[in-house]
Amino acid sequence: MQLLLKNIKQLVTVASNGKQCKTGVEMRDIGVIENATVLIEDGHFRWIGADAKFTTALSDDAHIVDASELVALPGFVDCHTHLVFAGSRENEFAMRAAGKTYQQIAEQGGGILSTVKATRAAVKKDLKKLASKRLDDMLKHGTTTVEIKSGYGLEEESEIKMMDVINELRKEHYMTVMPTFLGAHAIPPEYKQKPDEYVEFVCERMLPYVAKRKIASFCDVFCESGYFSVGQSRKILEKARSLGIDLKIHADELAPSGGSTLAGELRAVSADHLEHINDAGIRALKAGGTVGVLLPGVSFFLNHSYAPARKLIDAGVPVAISTDFNPGSCMSFSVPMMMTLACTQLNMTPEEAIAACTLNGAAALKMSNTVGSIETGKQADIVLYDIPNYQYLAYHFGVNHVNTVIKRGVILEF
Amino acid sequence: MQLLLKNIKQLVTVASNGKQCKTGVEMRDIGVIENATVLIEDGHFRWIGADAKFTTALSDDAHIVDASELVALPGFVDCHTHLVFAGSRENEFAMRAAGKTYQQIAEQGGGILSTVKATRAAVKKDLKKLASKRLDDMLKHGTTTVEIKSGYGLEEESEIKMMDVINELRKEHYMTVMPTFLGAHAIPPEYKQKPDEYVEFVCERMLPYVAKRKIASFCDVFCESGYFSVGQSRKILEKARSLGIDLKIHADELAPSGGSTLAGELRAVSADHLEHINDAGIRALKAGGTVGVLLPGVSFFLNHSYAPARKLIDAGVPVAISTDFNPGSCMSFSVPMMMTLACTQLNMTPEEAIAACTLNGAAALKMSNTVGSIETGKQADIVLYDIPNYQYLAYHFGVNHVNTVIKRGVILEF
Repeated sequence: MQLLLKNIKQLVTVASNGKQCKTGVEMRDIGVIENATVLIEDGHFRWIGADAKFTTALSDDAHIVDASELVALPGFVDCHTHLVFAGSRENEFAMRAAGKTYQQIAEQGGGILSTVKATRAAVKKDLKKLASKRLDDMLKHGTTTVEIKSGYGLEEESEIKMMDVINELRKEHYMTVMPTFLGAHAIPPEYKQKPDEYVEFVCERMLPYVAKRKIASFCDVFCESGYFSVGQSRKILEKARSLGIDLKIHADELAPSGGSTLAGELRAVSADHLEHINDAGIRALKAGGTVGVLLPGVSFFLNHSYAPARKLIDAGVPVAISTDFNPGSCMSFSVPMMMTLACTQLNMTPEEAIAACTLNGAAALKMSNTVGSIETGKQADIVLYDIPNYQYLAYHFGVNHVNTVIKRGVILEF
Repeated sequence: MQLLLKNIKQLVTVASNGKQCKTGVEMRDIGVIENATVLIEDGHFRWIGADAKFTTALSDDAHIVDASELVALPGFVDCHTHLVFAGSRENEFAMRAAGKTYQQIAEQGGGILSTVKATRAAVKKDLKKLASKRLDDMLKHGTTTVEIKSGYGLEEESEIKMMDVINELRKEHYMTVMPTFLGAHAIPPEYKQKPDEYVEFVCERMLPYVAKRKIASFCDVFCESGYFSVGQSRKILEKARSLGIDLKIHADELAPSGGSTLAGELRAVSADHLEHINDAGIRALKAGGTVGVLLPGVSFFLNHSYAPARKLIDAGVPVAISTDFNPGSCMSFSVPMMMTLACTQLNMTPEEAIAACTLNGAAALKMSNTVGSIETGKQADIVLYDIPNYQYLAYHFGVNHVNTVIKRGVILEF
């Protein structure tokens, strides 16, 4: 089956030219083609270029879309989310607005553990229904690949329930879903006085089970004071690696905790957050080939400091941007909103923001050979926007500019 | 014609109880009714209260809406916008992201004057079409009353063209539109060396014409270093007042320039921006009964300082929030986005943010006797949202939660 998009006013390919990701000044080179044609066949891009150069003969039943008023980008790759959860935390949002800090709220029983309580109590079917609705909404806003973490169970049964929900969505939903096991998201209340025993439980019980069932592409740890130390994080991540699972880490969010250095040393696929990364951490990420995943929505939502995006980019660390969609620290799945934050708060250019939310997001999931750019042979995830040019997407904020979402070559009907 | 909204999960009335606006702790009292009924008749609210208390007999042709999964708020009153403009300025947005300041860009021919150039060049029909589309989009996002300023003409013909567009939209569009004359938005290039002559021109030529044709409810001035001094602003505003036009002022945006003090002294209806208001300015607004209109989207978009919202509220100044929708310093018409900014960056509570975008927005337009709250006799502008409770609106950001917009008692079809 052929789908031809023709007369695309502006096509942003984010062409990777065979590389896994974009770094440094390459992030500003996003491969823009004016008046472009894209031919999709059997769910993959077959031909990409200027209208004038297109000469391929079409099959009789080819579907042709005139995109002369539209701008096209690769579907967004949102590489860090916690979107399987029950309950919501607008009450904490209101408490923060009235002056409480995130940590004060956590000490009063709020924070991650309040979502843990609701998620443990929810039956699988309900959790899945909530998450599936969120994936629908994300597709409508231009996201076509999503990573989802467990971590609101913090006990065997509930963590596995979350992983099962994620894996069922991965099989059944239109969205491309990548599952991450985050059993070490917080110290469960039952282990408050004996965190090392929980680490042991994660390493010796949960991880082997997850590995055996092949239900996690990644293992992640929240490495931070009050959560998991560098030593505990190392233990969990080394165990995961020994079981053949790739590594991610929540690093240096609230203070420079050494998480980024660990990430680089272990050659983790990504180190995420990095609001307080120091120079040693930056050097480690660069040396380890680790993608730095920035989550500006969290800094915005909690009114915390922003990550030093410019320093990271200028140092040659591949930088991705993601929503961190979760009910506590960033209740938003809008990637364009994160691009606006990147441009206004992180001093990233619109081009860098686009590369960070597409190809580099894919790199943070080891998927840049299949998604994240519009290149021949890749999965045909492409989104058309009602905007005059690609810069407009981050510029005109707070509104959904999506016109059409094409997922694996299929035009989605909402 | 009757329209009955019943079983409203949560109705936020923002009841004014006969007052023009909410100040101090009253801003947190937004009159929430659970399981509510609203009866609308001939475009106005006729009955408001708990479902259980509703006993009014309905006419045979009454239209009944079950809102049991929805939350209702008054339509937003966006009391400060520049939404009539041609062109767009995403290029400047990109320049700022790459490190240029707003003032550097202005010095290079960007800034307000670049929109002036495009707006002068546009024919009235095109300007109106662009603006009308923006009003449609704003209605879809829950805004039912909008103030619009001229100020991209800065010469007689183009300023009047803008005022005519605003007044035609006021007559023809579903949106309630309030027109403001802002001839003194910037020194026109033609008067760069002789700003006092332009002030003279505004006072002696444009204002009398505007007053005679009754095409402006308000006169506004951009009082700031490099724009109009306090003395020049006073001259223009006093002239406007002598012609029977109410006063607004852009004050203390880039530095404490004395604009707020002038606003209070002249008993202006509102003083807008206030990012750098000082204690004398706060006292003046309070004494003058002047509404302080905060525009957090500008601080966000330009990465400038935010206005001291808490100080203003705690001092008893009535605070409104608006988008300042314009192509240079805030390219967004999303009021909920501004509420999120208010909660995360201004330390306002969700309740204060709602009062600021409804009743107090109406007060900034001298309209709180007709719009801005859900009270018997007022114009039936009410919006239903797909959210579990009103706090969710600012909490879950970057997405449009509107389910149904009712304008003057009519359900709008989009």
